[in-house]
Amino acid sequence: MPDDERAIRALIQTWLAATQKGDIQTVLDLMSDDVVFMLPGQNPFGKEAFAASFKALTGVRFETSSEIKEIKLLGDWAYLRNYLEVTMTPPGGAPLRRSGHTLTILRKEPDGRWLVARDANLLAPQA
Amino acid sequence: MPDDERAIRALIQTWLAATQKGDIQTVLDLMSDDVVFMLPGQNPFGKEAFAASFKALTGVRFETSSEIKEIKLLGDWAYLRNYLEVTMTPPGGAPLRRSGHTLTILRKEPDGRWLVARDANLLAPQA
Repeated sequence: MPDDERAIRALIQTWLAATQKGDIQTVLDLMSDDVVFMLPGQNPFGKEAFAASFKALTGVRFETSSEIKEIKLLGDWAYLRNYLEVTMTPPGGAPLRRSGHTLTILRKEPDGRWLVARDANLLAPQA
Repeated sequence: MPDDERAIRALIQTWLAATQKGDIQTVLDLMSDDVVFMLPGQNPFGKEAFAASFKALTGVRFETSSEIKEIKLLGDWAYLRNYLEVTMTPPGGAPLRRSGHTLTILRKEPDGRWLVARDANLLAPQA
């Protein structure tokens, strides 16, 4: 497996583990400053709005699983298709399950780190 | 504007115009054979399933508008963010409006043509 692919797989694992721990700073450090997040039926949003949403979920328990479907390296860029299952359980509340696919564009920084640059999240509520 | 960006903009216009005309062959010729389409809450699908869905909509009138938000050229690859409004009117039926954003990955063929390779469509029903 190419080093870049290994690095991108590690990024995804770090992202999901940090989400589960509520470690927002680690997640923010894995995205570019000009990142664009896209969700169905919403306007795209950036890093600040992501941080605000993340903070609004403080106390919610996250469980995630990920199955990477494709990583395509394009030099200092890459795209990735992933399948995610996410369970969010608010304190004292019932678990909410969402699952579906993502299409993510990543960029390699001059220092060699990969960052998420664009992310289309197609997860939908699971029955 | 770089020639590649101009070609990608032309592709989008051709795609939408052919969709409005029900010209499936033109649309199919604008995507790679290994294209992957992604929609919220659905499994990704390829060219054959796209063609079957398109044929199932025969007789439906399409009106579309598009506002390209970003084109990023990455050599023989590119990604594009677009905002689409689509109105589908079945024969004798009420119009259905959907709007939202797309994240598309395109590839330049050895012969110089750009083709859609991956497409995440985040359109949702419009009130």
